[in-house]
Amino acid sequence: MSIEQFSVRGRLADTGEGITADELQLAARNHGMPLEGLRYDVTPPGLHYVLVHYDIPATNAATWSLTVDGCVEQPLSFSLTHLRAMGRRTVRVTLECAGNGRAALQPRPISQPWLNEAVGTAEWTGVLLSDLLRAAGIRADAVDVVFTGADHGVERGVEQDYQRGLSVTEAIDSGAIVAWEMNGQPLPPQHGYPLRLVVPGWYGMASVKWLRSIELIDHEFTGFQNAVAYRIRKTADDPGEPVTRIEPRALLIPPGFPDFMSRHRFVAAGTVTLHGRAWSGWAPIERVELSVDAGVSWHPAKMDAVGNDELAWRSFSYDWDATPGEHVLTVRAADASGREQPIEAEWNRGGFANNTAQRITVLVT
Amino acid sequence: MSIEQFSVRGRLADTGEGITADELQLAARNHGMPLEGLRYDVTPPGLHYVLVHYDIPATNAATWSLTVDGCVEQPLSFSLTHLRAMGRRTVRVTLECAGNGRAALQPRPISQPWLNEAVGTAEWTGVLLSDLLRAAGIRADAVDVVFTGADHGVERGVEQDYQRGLSVTEAIDSGAIVAWEMNGQPLPPQHGYPLRLVVPGWYGMASVKWLRSIELIDHEFTGFQNAVAYRIRKTADDPGEPVTRIEPRALLIPPGFPDFMSRHRFVAAGTVTLHGRAWSGWAPIERVELSVDAGVSWHPAKMDAVGNDELAWRSFSYDWDATPGEHVLTVRAADASGREQPIEAEWNRGGFANNTAQRITVLVT
Repeated sequence: MSIEQFSVRGRLADTGEGITADELQLAARNHGMPLEGLRYDVTPPGLHYVLVHYDIPATNAATWSLTVDGCVEQPLSFSLTHLRAMGRRTVRVTLECAGNGRAALQPRPISQPWLNEAVGTAEWTGVLLSDLLRAAGIRADAVDVVFTGADHGVERGVEQDYQRGLSVTEAIDSGAIVAWEMNGQPLPPQHGYPLRLVVPGWYGMASVKWLRSIELIDHEFTGFQNAVAYRIRKTADDPGEPVTRIEPRALLIPPGFPDFMSRHRFVAAGTVTLHGRAWSGWAPIERVELSVDAGVSWHPAKMDAVGNDELAWRSFSYDWDATPGEHVLTVRAADASGREQPIEAEWNRGGFANNTAQRITVLVT
Repeated sequence: MSIEQFSVRGRLADTGEGITADELQLAARNHGMPLEGLRYDVTPPGLHYVLVHYDIPATNAATWSLTVDGCVEQPLSFSLTHLRAMGRRTVRVTLECAGNGRAALQPRPISQPWLNEAVGTAEWTGVLLSDLLRAAGIRADAVDVVFTGADHGVERGVEQDYQRGLSVTEAIDSGAIVAWEMNGQPLPPQHGYPLRLVVPGWYGMASVKWLRSIELIDHEFTGFQNAVAYRIRKTADDPGEPVTRIEPRALLIPPGFPDFMSRHRFVAAGTVTLHGRAWSGWAPIERVELSVDAGVSWHPAKMDAVGNDELAWRSFSYDWDATPGEHVLTVRAADASGREQPIEAEWNRGGFANNTAQRITVLVT
C-alpha cells in the first residue's frame, strides 16, 4: 500500500449526489463566518473563516524562526523578537477563501463545500514583507518568492509542506505583511500562530500560515498549490489560469429570524433596513445594488464611507418596504476597477473565485 | 403561507442518502474542534465547538440585564456590573454537543451533522448560579428553573426564544455558573456574549447562551428544548428520556499527517506516542484503553493526573510500535461512576449522547 492509493483525486459530484463523507469531514473541521457576523467591522477570530489544508501544526513562538534565503545578498533568519524590532504595521484586510460558493455549483466540484460564508475581516499586525526582502537584499536574478508553512500533508498523491509562490513584484506591490497578531492578540493556532503571511486583496490561499521560510528563486515557482491546485480550468487537462485576487462580492445579513433546520427566514411586514458588506481584491467597492424581487428590478444601496484600508469590506444598507408574502433578496457589487459581480458566475472545475450573487428567500408575515 | 410550512420536521436519512443541503447549511455555520486541538489543555475560543440554534444575536454588554424572577422572595435584575460584584469563580469545563457523533449513525438523523469533533474545554469565569438564586430567595413552591437566551427562531414549527429548564436541585447541585468570561476574555459573540450559563457535566444544550432571564416556576418545564428536542427516543412517538449529562468518551489526536480530502492518515514506522483526552459528565475518568488492531486486543493507556476540575477532560498517552501496513486505532474510556464507553453506542432517533468509539485508519510506511 502506498500514500498515493489513499489520496483522492479531484472529481465532480454526480447529478443529485449529496454532500459526500469526505466533504463532510472538511466541513466539520473548517468553518465559515455565520452571515450575521457581517455586523462586525472586524470579525472576532472565532467567527473569521478558517481553511486548513492539512493539520494545525504544533508550534512554539519562543523557538520559531523564519528564514529568508535563496536569491538574496544575505540570507537571514529571524526570531519573533527580531521581527518585532523590524517594525510594526497594522492593516485591516478582508480575506475570502478561493473556494467560497463552491458547494452551490452545478456540477459541484468535490472539495471543501463552502456556501457563501468563507470570509472575514481582521486587523493583522506585523512587518512589511518588502522590508524583510530588502533587509536580505533582492538579487537581480530573483523571479519568484516561495513561502513555506509548517503544515504537512498529502494532496492528490503529492506529499508536501504547504507552499505558495508570488512573483517578486507581487510580493512587494501587494503590501503583504508577515503578521504575528490578529486583532491585537497573538495569532490563534488555526490562523497561523506564531507567524503568517497576509496578502491583501488576494484569495486566502496566498496568505501562508505557520510561515517558516521565504525563499527567492530564479525561475517561476511550479509547486503544487500554484501549478496544480488553485487554477481556473474548464476541463481536467486544461492548464488553466492562476487564482489571484478576490472578485467583487456583496453579502447581506439575512434579515429577521431563521428556522433551525432549513434556515428559511421570517420577517414582520414593515420597513426593514437590510445591512451588508461588499469587497473586492482589485479595487475599492464603488456601488452595491439590491433586488427584493429575485433580480427583476434593482435599487442602489446606501453606501457607508470607505475606511482607510481600501481592501477591507465596505458596509451598505437599504430600507426595504417588506410586504406580506415570499420574497427573494439578492445583491451585487461593483468596484472602482470596473469589475461587476455577476448574477451567475461562470463555472470552473475547481469551484474557484465563484462570486455568484447571494439569494435569500424570506417569508414576510 | 405560514411559518410552519417552512419549518422542517425531524427525519431520518434514506439508505445511502448523502448529506443534505439543509445539513450542509448547519455544518457551514457551526463548527467542531479539529481533533489536533486535543493537544491544548484549554481550547482556544475559535477552536472550541460551537452550535447556535438560530442566529448569534446582536447584544450590548453596557445595557444587558439579567432578570431572576418567578417563585422567588424578591425578583432581581442584574447588570453586568452588578453581577461582577457578586463574586468571581473560574471553572475548567469540558462541553460537548449532545449531537456529537450523529452523522455516523445508521440510519442518520437529519440535523447538525457532527462527526466526533463537537467538544472543547474552556475556563469560564462568573458567579455561581446558586448564589444568584439565593440572593433572590428560592420559594418553597419552586420546582424548575427556566433559562432564556436572546436567540430567537423557529424549530419544527414552534417559534421560540431558546429556553432550557433544570430542576432547582440540578441548578444548585451542578455547580452551574453564570459566566461573562471565557479563558480570561469577554465571551466571544458565538459563545454567548455578554452572559451565558455553563452547567458543568451536562451536554451543551443546558448551557444557555446570551442569558437574559432566569425564572423559577412551580411546575415541571415543558418547553420545546426539554420536552420535544433533546430526548432519547427509539421512535417518533416515543416520549423518550431527557438528554442530561455527558457520557464517557475518549478521543485520540490523529497521528502522523493527513491527505487533504480523505483525511486518511500516514505515519512513519517506529515508536509513535499516541495522545488523547477523555471525559465524562458523570464522574472523573478512571481509565482509557486503546486498540491498534480495530478492537481485537486492548491495552491500558498511561493516564496523566486528574486536574482540579474533575469534569474537565483528562489526558492520556500510549506508545505504539507502528509496523508497516494499515492499522485501525480505537479507544474507549471508563469513569469512576462505573460507566464504560461502548464500541458501538445504541442508536436513537435524535442522534443524541452517542459515544460510539472513535476509529482512525492509519497507513504506516
